[in-house]
Amino acid sequence: MKHISRTIAFQGVPGAYSEVAARSFLGPIARTVARDTFEDVFKAVQKEKVRYGVVPIENSLAGSIHENYDLLLSHRLHIIGETHLRIEHVLMAHPASSRRSIRFVRSHPQALAQCSNFFRKNRGIKSVPFFDTAGAALSLQDGSSPDTAAIAGRFAARLYGLKILKRNLEDRRENFTRFLLLSRTPARLPSHARTKCSIAFAPRKNQVGILFRILGVFALRDIDLLKIESRPDPRSVFQYLFYLDLAGDPRMPHVSGALEHLSEMVTHFRLLGAYPRGSGHL
Amino acid sequence: MKHISRTIAFQGVPGAYSEVAARSFLGPIARTVARDTFEDVFKAVQKEKVRYGVVPIENSLAGSIHENYDLLLSHRLHIIGETHLRIEHVLMAHPASSRRSIRFVRSHPQALAQCSNFFRKNRGIKSVPFFDTAGAALSLQDGSSPDTAAIAGRFAARLYGLKILKRNLEDRRENFTRFLLLSRTPARLPSHARTKCSIAFAPRKNQVGILFRILGVFALRDIDLLKIESRPDPRSVFQYLFYLDLAGDPRMPHVSGALEHLSEMVTHFRLLGAYPRGSGHL
Repeated sequence: MKHISRTIAFQGVPGAYSEVAARSFLGPIARTVARDTFEDVFKAVQKEKVRYGVVPIENSLAGSIHENYDLLLSHRLHIIGETHLRIEHVLMAHPASSRRSIRFVRSHPQALAQCSNFFRKNRGIKSVPFFDTAGAALSLQDGSSPDTAAIAGRFAARLYGLKILKRNLEDRRENFTRFLLLSRTPARLPSHARTKCSIAFAPRKNQVGILFRILGVFALRDIDLLKIESRPDPRSVFQYLFYLDLAGDPRMPHVSGALEHLSEMVTHFRLLGAYPRGSGHL
Repeated sequence: MKHISRTIAFQGVPGAYSEVAARSFLGPIARTVARDTFEDVFKAVQKEKVRYGVVPIENSLAGSIHENYDLLLSHRLHIIGETHLRIEHVLMAHPASSRRSIRFVRSHPQALAQCSNFFRKNRGIKSVPFFDTAGAALSLQDGSSPDTAAIAGRFAARLYGLKILKRNLEDRRENFTRFLLLSRTPARLPSHARTKCSIAFAPRKNQVGILFRILGVFALRDIDLLKIESRPDPRSVFQYLFYLDLAGDPRMPHVSGALEHLSEMVTHFRLLGAYPRGSGHL
């Protein structure tokens, strides 16, 4: 197992924002492994191809990524950490290109849309859709498109030897993505960490007031809720799923008591992970 | 005002899923107006360029679209209706093309990702990113790319005279998007409709248990909650915003009483709209 001890799978191509998040968890000696899809990331961890996985779970503009919540429910991995990454879009090109020669800008459509002010101010520059931000940067590495730039993260510019033409291209600076670190085994928590639990459940019945009673489980024990979200259960029409983040360590009696109390009132209860609260915006 | 009475703005190009949602609200005689961005849709309604606007607010796989919640808060429009559209991805090409001649498939990267099984089974077919699904369909209209297909909605195939090569290309059938109908004036509610209210607020303080007390406002009056979501307020770090959908008509005393009671406990309270509950999955 030694050889995989620092391996971490992420979705995308090298230089993706997810890879930056992976490095922020494990540091510069991390061995990052690119995978095509989020499901491939979960599978790589589950099948012991890698030690860890990293996936985005919510973005401050785009919202929660339900697909990754679904994958958390359909796999038996543990959340063991979180980090918040500010998404700074950078305009980059081959070192031989100049700012004035740029006529095309490649990136993922969502990143292009998040930089709409730049395109409004530069009417002569055409945006070109690409699969992902880092892939757009990679496509410029060989210097064959001197009139083309890419929008991606700074890390991609460094990785592919591109020149940064402009930083902070995004319309709104409050663009954060929260990433989760996944593992086959639960986190080893330090004894006094500010610990957070992520749980998922479906109420036993969709009764009026059921959510109020569920939150009572935590309120009556002075446990602070950090996030709550309901969504229709994709596996069963008209049934709801809830995701809850709470402040507390499940080794503490009032937290474990609350989780036991909750499990009496719900079905499909899952403790997705207990992990140190990450710093950052969200 | 007569001439704009059936006009409705949507984001995207003609044939977009949003345009299908617009027509499901207003019927076939709707005059749909394409806009580049979600903000442009809000502005078109606010500046009386159109009577109505339609925007997606949540998708069963991708989650809530926070950007549109932010736009609801920064504009003074009313939600007057909702509809749930099943997203069925269809493979389409120019009528002169045959299924066997297809080598490339254009679509939005998210749609391409949602059809990953198709590309796994058809290794010889390459996916090509495009700004949007309907735009990919439009690009095939002139017949100049006989080896290329697009993934978009059925409506786009009809609009651009394309042939449907395969239906239900998506990996997961439980792919629904909820759209909101927006207007400058509140909905005129029929007297016995199953009415729903969407509200947004920030708790006055981030105290432990504040959400429990807030939900008590509704639970103690037997008002059913249909959706709840918390998110960090993008305008103020470490402050939370809540979005709540509840079953009830604000003209009924127990509902108006609950909303008044709530406004004592929160800041930035907004009734985003009261409207008939839409049918569909979510």
